[in-house]
Amino acid sequence: MAKFVSIFTMRNLLVLSLALNLSLIMRVTFEGGKQGFFSVEEKHRGPSMAENKEEAHATQRALLSLSSSSGQDGVEKVINLDHGDPTMYEKYWMKMGERTTIVIPGWQSMSYFSDVKNLCWFLEPELAKQVFRLHKAVGNAVTEGRHIVVGTGSSQLFLAALFALSPKDGSQPMSVVSAAPYYSSYPSMTNCLKSGLYNWAGDARSFSKDGPYIEVVTSPNNPDGFVRHSTVNRTGGILVHDLAYYWPQYTPISSPADHDLTLFTVSKATGHAGTRIGWALVKDAEVAKKMTKFIELNTIGVSRDSQLRAAKILEVMTDTSQNLGSSELGESFFRISYHLMAERWELLRAAVNNGRMFSLPDFAPGFCHFLQQETQPQPAFAWLKCEDDAVEDCESFLKGHKILTRGGRHFGVGPKYVRISMVDRDINFSLFLKRLSTIQS
Amino acid sequence: MAKFVSIFTMRNLLVLSLALNLSLIMRVTFEGGKQGFFSVEEKHRGPSMAENKEEAHATQRALLSLSSSSGQDGVEKVINLDHGDPTMYEKYWMKMGERTTIVIPGWQSMSYFSDVKNLCWFLEPELAKQVFRLHKAVGNAVTEGRHIVVGTGSSQLFLAALFALSPKDGSQPMSVVSAAPYYSSYPSMTNCLKSGLYNWAGDARSFSKDGPYIEVVTSPNNPDGFVRHSTVNRTGGILVHDLAYYWPQYTPISSPADHDLTLFTVSKATGHAGTRIGWALVKDAEVAKKMTKFIELNTIGVSRDSQLRAAKILEVMTDTSQNLGSSELGESFFRISYHLMAERWELLRAAVNNGRMFSLPDFAPGFCHFLQQETQPQPAFAWLKCEDDAVEDCESFLKGHKILTRGGRHFGVGPKYVRISMVDRDINFSLFLKRLSTIQS
Repeated sequence: MAKFVSIFTMRNLLVLSLALNLSLIMRVTFEGGKQGFFSVEEKHRGPSMAENKEEAHATQRALLSLSSSSGQDGVEKVINLDHGDPTMYEKYWMKMGERTTIVIPGWQSMSYFSDVKNLCWFLEPELAKQVFRLHKAVGNAVTEGRHIVVGTGSSQLFLAALFALSPKDGSQPMSVVSAAPYYSSYPSMTNCLKSGLYNWAGDARSFSKDGPYIEVVTSPNNPDGFVRHSTVNRTGGILVHDLAYYWPQYTPISSPADHDLTLFTVSKATGHAGTRIGWALVKDAEVAKKMTKFIELNTIGVSRDSQLRAAKILEVMTDTSQNLGSSELGESFFRISYHLMAERWELLRAAVNNGRMFSLPDFAPGFCHFLQQETQPQPAFAWLKCEDDAVEDCESFLKGHKILTRGGRHFGVGPKYVRISMVDRDINFSLFLKRLSTIQS
Repeated sequence: MAKFVSIFTMRNLLVLSLALNLSLIMRVTFEGGKQGFFSVEEKHRGPSMAENKEEAHATQRALLSLSSSSGQDGVEKVINLDHGDPTMYEKYWMKMGERTTIVIPGWQSMSYFSDVKNLCWFLEPELAKQVFRLHKAVGNAVTEGRHIVVGTGSSQLFLAALFALSPKDGSQPMSVVSAAPYYSSYPSMTNCLKSGLYNWAGDARSFSKDGPYIEVVTSPNNPDGFVRHSTVNRTGGILVHDLAYYWPQYTPISSPADHDLTLFTVSKATGHAGTRIGWALVKDAEVAKKMTKFIELNTIGVSRDSQLRAAKILEVMTDTSQNLGSSELGESFFRISYHLMAERWELLRAAVNNGRMFSLPDFAPGFCHFLQQETQPQPAFAWLKCEDDAVEDCESFLKGHKILTRGGRHFGVGPKYVRISMVDRDINFSLFLKRLSTIQS
């Protein structure tokens, strides 16, 4: 095991200095002479357009929360990169100021019903409109001939899909599989109620049971970031495509996804995890109806307030995306986020390559039809492998260095791997890099 | 079956005239010389405090929605009183204008986490504060020594409670019972996933199976409005109290509820059904933790936007409740709503008693410690019985008169009964009364 030294070594300083240089070069290259989005000064300035009292109060709260999380930046602070909490995006939206502010009067959206004429009666028409508009602008999904089912995040939609796709009178539960490493929550979400309709059958690669099954295809994959296709590939299989990360900041947009049932979520697209909004694009009306029924039985619909907020945010994303550079509408969310992720991945690779303890996946670049250039995959999670023979359990090892991650066993593989969030706030990401360097020094 | 006449008879007109008089008398008595909350002029005026553009737009949308629902008031219009959609309360909140408006900047509440130090990590501290404050003001629940678990409506909390209270390694599913007539969604919510943890075992009165069980006690009861206590009453039973309707507008507040696990929901308390927020008061920390885990697996928390909105609304409710008359803070929500419900029940009883076809439950009055007077139960639903021998199925019969209701079979009893929403908009309630009178004439 590498020795842990609490003071900086020369090698350590060299890596940090390299990281800082890279960061500066990328800012100059990609953001020109304009104000940087993620500079330290920025954090203490707040949105320039804050004009009314509520806004000012909210600004104050946000700044307090940011400063409290950055207050403890010594070796004592535990950095939690276990969850994919997308707080990295807060600064972009602060910069956008009032453009995505929503105002909801007390008497608005009180009824259960958003649109009684829609198959999904609790879907806000404005959200549906903005979802279609965004997919068209980004080119990441075919929307023609699709029904939208809105969910309380894509977790609820995943469960709704299992409910909709499993026969109600089956002699045994439908098998649900996904190729390892798979999203750690699929097994527990599938099995937590011991449903007689479906159960978790593990790694799709080793699945050999006869009969119908559901295969979840997550692409780019959580945790490892690779583009994926169906693995089992035999008759009787029904595919659910979880495309939570199929956005330009994470992966090249090669073509519009064209599947039977596709899941998306606001949390990974825009960073609004606390808003709990996801959507499914569903080809078959009967499947969409059953998913709607599940959500009715589960939560009697989806918060209308959150749908309206999500619609506003998607609207601004699309508006800024239609001019990829800067415009009076603000800088493109996807371009800014793409460069931020690129910067973080460069820094992480530099830190990892500075020693022999860890390795990261290698990705092939691809042409992104949205950004109109060749881009590298730069996933929302780093799938880090401990190469050191002395380290059996990478999660525990990093925990010893006060870095919380999620170990490989949760994803159906060995403990040599950990998943690390790449979308946390700057301060945590910087501390993480610093500690990685310390560990390897 | 009563003959259906499409023109007004003398008797019919008499009932309507009586209804109008009653209504006018009650308005004069309870609202004095002040502006009426529910006058027709009011509807087209909009909130007096609407000052900014967003507010004005929202006002316009609400008015459009109100006028479209009131546009078709002839015999052709289908009146949907199947759901308990609490749109009756819209006018109160319009009257309150900006006091319950919330403003959410785009960069606020982005993280999954509301309060990492709380057992329920996705609970907004401000909502917790306002829930405690409201219960204290109303006196309808003991909050000392309770954990709050927030849910996407109380439906999700009901499921979370079943998950938390059922043993994970039981040899067979835990029985879930409730005394008939019980809330129509309990059976389908409990059974929809064919869970191995719990299953619906029907009417608590005829439940005789040995072993542990969960009894849901809904009080006042949905559909019939009666105050309830546990029915099975033997060892091994765990009680879940659904107190969605234990608010002063529906029933006398006799004492603070003091149970192990109690469910409340914003939709029935304030009328904000579209916001999807409920809360559980839970004595046992382990149960609260398991409920939190369920919601994590189900929807990864609860929309923070909606929690903030609910907190604001509860805050104003409590503020106006601390002065039961009118004050600069606005008129008391509970007093206004109590009088509105009283008015509606008087009108409904007058219409029903004008013939022999239907009957309604009779309730004993009780002293309401909140309103400091004796009050009558006046439930959010009318549990109407068809007394006419020629009518077997009351739901179908009323459907023939374009009144959609929910038949007794859904609630575990016979088809002579129907449940009818008493909390819809004025226009629908008036049309419903008119049709009842026509049917009985």
